[in-house]
Amino acid sequence: MNVGLLSPGEMGSAVASTLREYGATVRTCLEGRSARTRDLAARDRLEVSPTLADLVLASDFILSIVPPASALEVARGVAAALRATGARPIYVDCNAVAPSTVRAVAATVGCEVVDVGIIGSPPRGQGTTRFYASGPQAEHLDLPGLDVRPIGQEIGTASALKMCYAALTKGFTALATELLVAAQLLGVNDELAKELADSQAQHHATMARQIPRMPSVAHRWIGEMEEIAKTFAELGLTPRILEGAADLYRFAASTAVGAERPETRDMRRGLDETIEALARAAEEPAGTR
Amino acid sequence: MNVGLLSPGEMGSAVASTLREYGATVRTCLEGRSARTRDLAARDRLEVSPTLADLVLASDFILSIVPPASALEVARGVAAALRATGARPIYVDCNAVAPSTVRAVAATVGCEVVDVGIIGSPPRGQGTTRFYASGPQAEHLDLPGLDVRPIGQEIGTASALKMCYAALTKGFTALATELLVAAQLLGVNDELAKELADSQAQHHATMARQIPRMPSVAHRWIGEMEEIAKTFAELGLTPRILEGAADLYRFAASTAVGAERPETRDMRRGLDETIEALARAAEEPAGTR
Repeated sequence: MNVGLLSPGEMGSAVASTLREYGATVRTCLEGRSARTRDLAARDRLEVSPTLADLVLASDFILSIVPPASALEVARGVAAALRATGARPIYVDCNAVAPSTVRAVAATVGCEVVDVGIIGSPPRGQGTTRFYASGPQAEHLDLPGLDVRPIGQEIGTASALKMCYAALTKGFTALATELLVAAQLLGVNDELAKELADSQAQHHATMARQIPRMPSVAHRWIGEMEEIAKTFAELGLTPRILEGAADLYRFAASTAVGAERPETRDMRRGLDETIEALARAAEEPAGTR
Repeated sequence: MNVGLLSPGEMGSAVASTLREYGATVRTCLEGRSARTRDLAARDRLEVSPTLADLVLASDFILSIVPPASALEVARGVAAALRATGARPIYVDCNAVAPSTVRAVAATVGCEVVDVGIIGSPPRGQGTTRFYASGPQAEHLDLPGLDVRPIGQEIGTASALKMCYAALTKGFTALATELLVAAQLLGVNDELAKELADSQAQHHATMARQIPRMPSVAHRWIGEMEEIAKTFAELGLTPRILEGAADLYRFAASTAVGAERPETRDMRRGLDETIEALARAAEEPAGTR
């Protein structure tokens, strides 16, 4: 089993590790990638194909795991490599994008496509992550060691599920972060924390678990919130809740804690310190950040 | 203890019942009120003052418990009655409004004001509801049988706490409703329900508890979301999450289930049936609702 991976970021490199552990050969192509991505690829000992043409020729499946805003651009690059080489792998779009975006990817790429929605954290052993898959070839998607769950024949179904799920988890985190920063700025954070601990203990526990990690990944979530907003707007539902979540992540990404990355962030920083750091940033004039 | 209540809706009538039970006399004024409010006042056996002038003359405290968009208008009416009569009760603004709105109320009304943020359900016995109070007279607020909690000397602090808390509870309900309606329209509701039950069981339980009641009160929550959006915008934080929540409640209020009221809604309608009803409404052209 030969898998081509675009691109080995946090999720991609965890997926690569599992595939390798279960016997697949995982290659990537680092043309135009950042120093951080190159470091992650080296750490994961991925085979590196010098060009995209080499990569598509050597792959049974091409996995696209990139920032949502790059999904269509990556598909265009692969389409050109397929035209140039005549290679016919199955293209697996694993990105957090609107159903209409993955349909545009499928119309662009020029080979069989499987739509995948990844739900859960980067895979580390069993039970952490589900790979929901849809499309005519979804039943044939073979990703060794990963929990692949076919859910239908249509491109867009797996992405639809991902959009609704991420709206809950990342939409909640955006809402919770904003109101805690507001409470800090308004001077009612102690009273709010006591009231939440008493009457909203489960929500409060979720905040404490999710918010300290959020700034380090906020830059990635902006585009994901915009794709969910697009999904909802295309159904006639308001896009503004998720557009606002994108605004919140854009703000968080612009701060000092938002410049950290999951592997470099201060793991001792808890909920209160994270909210204080964001509140301090909110008080600065925007141009000074 | 003489309390004047403006106006006996669902929250107001529950407050009135508790105050009466603990020995207060509660009066209201029904000039210009709806048939439903008149019915609630009769059910609660409130004393009725024929005019606002009579009400302010007979009251130690005036409680304003009205839709957020009416808070300032109600204060203007009371201000006129105070000027006409020379009465000097303490005016207690219990509304879910931005700190800047309650400061405008205080600047308008012409007597001592206490800012109250009500957190919890309409009071039924002990432990259901907290009345956070702020302002120079907050320590002197005496509401028999109610859990009054002074939290500072400034008008706006209690409302700030209320805004942040309601952002969590009602913001979450708006977000959750939207994504479940989207999942229904996208045909992934079964897969999403299974995934949520497995990996987001607490969020899923909260949805099941809160969403069936939501449409019957959605009309009241529109203005509350707009006040929270205003609060956040005044701090330099995005207003769009809560503006979107207002959009969602505006949509829910416009549907057939949204025309029901807490006392008339079908209590057997659970989460799935509520989402199905909203999804059907979302599929209709807006003009036909």
